[in-house]
Amino acid sequence: MGSKRASSQGVSGFETIYGVHAVRVMLERHPERINTVRLAERRDDPRVREIEELARVNKRPVQRVDGHAFKQMLGDVSHQGVAAEITPQPPWTEDDLFAALQSARNPLLLALDGVQDPHNLGACLRTADACGALAVIVPRDRAAQLTPTVRKVAVGAAETTPVVVVTNLVRTLKLLKDAGLWVVGADADGPRQAHEVDFKGGVVLVLGAEGAGLRHLTRQTCDWVVRLPQLGSVESLNVSVAAGMLLYEAVRQRSVNV
Amino acid sequence: MGSKRASSQGVSGFETIYGVHAVRVMLERHPERINTVRLAERRDDPRVREIEELARVNKRPVQRVDGHAFKQMLGDVSHQGVAAEITPQPPWTEDDLFAALQSARNPLLLALDGVQDPHNLGACLRTADACGALAVIVPRDRAAQLTPTVRKVAVGAAETTPVVVVTNLVRTLKLLKDAGLWVVGADADGPRQAHEVDFKGGVVLVLGAEGAGLRHLTRQTCDWVVRLPQLGSVESLNVSVAAGMLLYEAVRQRSVNV
Repeated sequence: MGSKRASSQGVSGFETIYGVHAVRVMLERHPERINTVRLAERRDDPRVREIEELARVNKRPVQRVDGHAFKQMLGDVSHQGVAAEITPQPPWTEDDLFAALQSARNPLLLALDGVQDPHNLGACLRTADACGALAVIVPRDRAAQLTPTVRKVAVGAAETTPVVVVTNLVRTLKLLKDAGLWVVGADADGPRQAHEVDFKGGVVLVLGAEGAGLRHLTRQTCDWVVRLPQLGSVESLNVSVAAGMLLYEAVRQRSVNV
Repeated sequence: MGSKRASSQGVSGFETIYGVHAVRVMLERHPERINTVRLAERRDDPRVREIEELARVNKRPVQRVDGHAFKQMLGDVSHQGVAAEITPQPPWTEDDLFAALQSARNPLLLALDGVQDPHNLGACLRTADACGALAVIVPRDRAAQLTPTVRKVAVGAAETTPVVVVTNLVRTLKLLKDAGLWVVGADADGPRQAHEVDFKGGVVLVLGAEGAGLRHLTRQTCDWVVRLPQLGSVESLNVSVAAGMLLYEAVRQRSVNV
């Protein structure tokens, strides 16, 4: 459901994630990154017992703590009496990404071409996570990076959906094309609507910066450029909403024929 | 492209919208609400000449002002040398909504069941506008209203897509059903995926508050409850992203058979 960074430990510190769903997913997918699971003293129901069992199987320590300790740890958030102290996911390098692609079937990636606002990056991470994206790619320069603010806005998604920091986005997109992925950019004057392009194979969805849109070279690198709804007085969609629409379209297409 | 409220005139004051697209749309759709069109002294190109011609046809005064005056009026925004002083759109009553429905073909409405965050309401307005929604419905109590912050986040959409303030959302939804619209709510455990429901006729899309989701009575009033992608560790989507996905799905379905 969320995450909170422990500032006392500095940048190399731990992260606390919370909520039944977030902790269960972390135990299932990355148990090695969990240091301790913390459960509210009085919680005893099937969902919490499932978490206890997952922790036992994966040999992760479980502590029972009282409501006061939860409040000290997390403040006023909806933690559901379930939290876990984890080793935060560091950003991925390009090499990490290509290694992960080896075992991914029809990977879905999101690339942000110079998104500067940390709230937009956090919101994109949250949506990319919900839509099953493998990772979110951002350039190293002139773009928001994986800061505590981004992690907070992403409410835990930064712990499961990695951010890949690359030196040259266009070069990375070309390497992804060489690896067999389609590169699909979104722009207001794109010649096709999103649903007219096939998102079922491996695909990288590319969104431009707030206001400016895709850079010229990025656009040239795209296999397809699609437009999103633009029926009103406002000239552009918020970048995290645009990302949500494209990711939704990919999930829809992939679910139709299953 | 955006809007800015002139505080010197208080709540009954005017609003300044800016950007070629926003001003052109306002001249086309609501010329009666434009007090003055302001153009940068040196701008003279087909898009600006089109705006001058629309203003002339609709008998709206046009002033040429210098860059300094634009900066004073709007600060550092991307105004493209085009602005207009307009009478802000007031919130609609339920009666206004039902009057507008008389002449609307397959209307698309968005209803927000207790969204409290003004940024989320503003973002929903911006997206509703882009997707051609007729209006956005919000309850009078325990929900964000049409404040200057909301107008700012909506970057001008609040001037073309009205906010309908209602006393009892469930009652309004029932009246909309009686008027022939389908009421479709979104919830994490909805039995259908969004693309499995027909959005081509008149439809009201209903989203719950941040975290809490649809209220019990609201959910009972829905003809369909659909779920959105939820493949990751995060338990819910941001409400404005969820609204974007549903509105996108409606636009997609409506465009497929055109």
